[in-house]
Amino acid sequence: MPMPRALGEREIIEIIWKQLDKMPKMPIAFGDDISACQIESGKLALLKTDMLVGKTDIPRGMSLWQAARKAVVMNVSDFAAKGAQPRAVLVSLGLPRGMTRKDVEEIGKGLDAGAREYGAYIIGGDTGETSDLVISVSLFGLGRRGELMLRSGAKPGDLVAVTGLFGKTSAGLKILLHHMKVETAVRERLVESVLLPRARLKEGTALCGTGAVTSSIDSSDGLAWSLHEVAKMSRVGFFIDHIPVDENAARFAEMNGLDVAELTLYGGEEYELVVTVRPALWMKAQEAVEKAGGCLFGIGRVTGEQKVVLRFNGEEQVVEARGYEHFAI
Amino acid sequence: MPMPRALGEREIIEIIWKQLDKMPKMPIAFGDDISACQIESGKLALLKTDMLVGKTDIPRGMSLWQAARKAVVMNVSDFAAKGAQPRAVLVSLGLPRGMTRKDVEEIGKGLDAGAREYGAYIIGGDTGETSDLVISVSLFGLGRRGELMLRSGAKPGDLVAVTGLFGKTSAGLKILLHHMKVETAVRERLVESVLLPRARLKEGTALCGTGAVTSSIDSSDGLAWSLHEVAKMSRVGFFIDHIPVDENAARFAEMNGLDVAELTLYGGEEYELVVTVRPALWMKAQEAVEKAGGCLFGIGRVTGEQKVVLRFNGEEQVVEARGYEHFAI
Repeated sequence: MPMPRALGEREIIEIIWKQLDKMPKMPIAFGDDISACQIESGKLALLKTDMLVGKTDIPRGMSLWQAARKAVVMNVSDFAAKGAQPRAVLVSLGLPRGMTRKDVEEIGKGLDAGAREYGAYIIGGDTGETSDLVISVSLFGLGRRGELMLRSGAKPGDLVAVTGLFGKTSAGLKILLHHMKVETAVRERLVESVLLPRARLKEGTALCGTGAVTSSIDSSDGLAWSLHEVAKMSRVGFFIDHIPVDENAARFAEMNGLDVAELTLYGGEEYELVVTVRPALWMKAQEAVEKAGGCLFGIGRVTGEQKVVLRFNGEEQVVEARGYEHFAI
Repeated sequence: MPMPRALGEREIIEIIWKQLDKMPKMPIAFGDDISACQIESGKLALLKTDMLVGKTDIPRGMSLWQAARKAVVMNVSDFAAKGAQPRAVLVSLGLPRGMTRKDVEEIGKGLDAGAREYGAYIIGGDTGETSDLVISVSLFGLGRRGELMLRSGAKPGDLVAVTGLFGKTSAGLKILLHHMKVETAVRERLVESVLLPRARLKEGTALCGTGAVTSSIDSSDGLAWSLHEVAKMSRVGFFIDHIPVDENAARFAEMNGLDVAELTLYGGEEYELVVTVRPALWMKAQEAVEKAGGCLFGIGRVTGEQKVVLRFNGEEQVVEARGYEHFAI
């Protein structure tokens, strides 16, 4: 008998969703980066949960402190994409047998670092025994209906922008997992992007305050996937004419004979924001991000036809709806 | 070299807690059944997270539907103990490779059943690949400062009560795991208590409304453990003169030559509430629970000396601070 095809992450989420009674008038659509529950007229509780799993999310070379911090940061990134400040963090911790006191201390310190870096506090949690290390993080924050940046809302003619350059984590992972080579200085930057990811929370809240943004998503599943998700939820398309390649990633691609566009579009765990901006408010958006200490790079524009097209080296190509797949050791 | 002693669940939580920056003015002390974060003057966001892990929390004979439902119910029980209504549920799901569409559907239906039974909705979540099945559930609800039942607050002279009888799940687990014997009718009830646990949410919210309760905890780690936790956080002791044994559990103990007190005090995953009640308001508390469709059984009283004493069969014995340990297959 043939083996049944393994279910993908998004397929599993869709199957689960189909079994559920739906909360009436959900303030944020299912499938957006975070969830919400109305507290009172206009006021929302914002909630997010995601787990980090040892065998797929902790590459060789990442310490327990870094892994624990990352478990928080990857959740903060989803709040950042909505322009929302996380306030409280809960952690459900599955530990393999044989963890020492020092290991657990390291995890505690990493969790705290991830929360405090973004102005949140860890206020509770629980622990149990698992085969893999599992760090399930939940965030809570407050927001107002109509003031969050959602995945839906992009309009043809809007500008598309990102808060940082791509390809770094993809290259960094290849260095850590497959021992690919590059000069030491370049290597360090690329590896650091994997081990010490940063969420664009200041950029996200600053952008949200401008009213310039029509849609937003984080790029943890890769730039191509993020664009396709916004395309689906906003019923638009994208024309990308400026590919945001990080220079170190480009150097890495060159040295290892890799395709720069592939590295930039289909890598993952790159916690940048991908936003669409009203053209008339572009300068306002850019200034807000710069004032927050970040950068906003224009990469193209929103189109009416639901597909993603890239113009690169003078040629046009269709960007596939292909996401980053977690590695398994 | 001798193997280092394995860290216990509570030890791990304490080590983590020591590494954390503390949120100023936490409305609910760390270590209570749930956590809270102030929204505005007096108004609290209530939060809870706990994970169910295949190898320690899903006994043989429990279906995926039942396991998923239980993952929600065990979290609802902690809300029940505080007298709080959960409103929204998030689920972080770790699935072993090889799960079929039917398996995932069953999990989705079980999660939904657990939430809807208690008036909550599942509004979001995420999934990843793990070696064990891991179902990490987070609950959100609203409450008001000063209106929740905490673990602290019991006063000498208060009455101690429970919302149900004990020993059932402990006996049920022995039947499922060790094939211990008992008559079919008795067996069914004992096994059902393991496979279909119920949270005392109606009882908890009814009790909370009376103002009669001075402290409250759920009994998921066993009756003895719960009493010791309240003793620690309220700086009191207990004198238990009526041991709340379920009749089916008593029959099971008799048939298998087991100690009834042991079964009642140190079993776990029995989601009853253990509360202390102002003596002058006892009738009010009892009536409120009965009106909600439940029962309140007096089992003893609060004392000034921080220890737990049981009078059983005419003899007094000290109840140990021993909790339920999760089984491992």
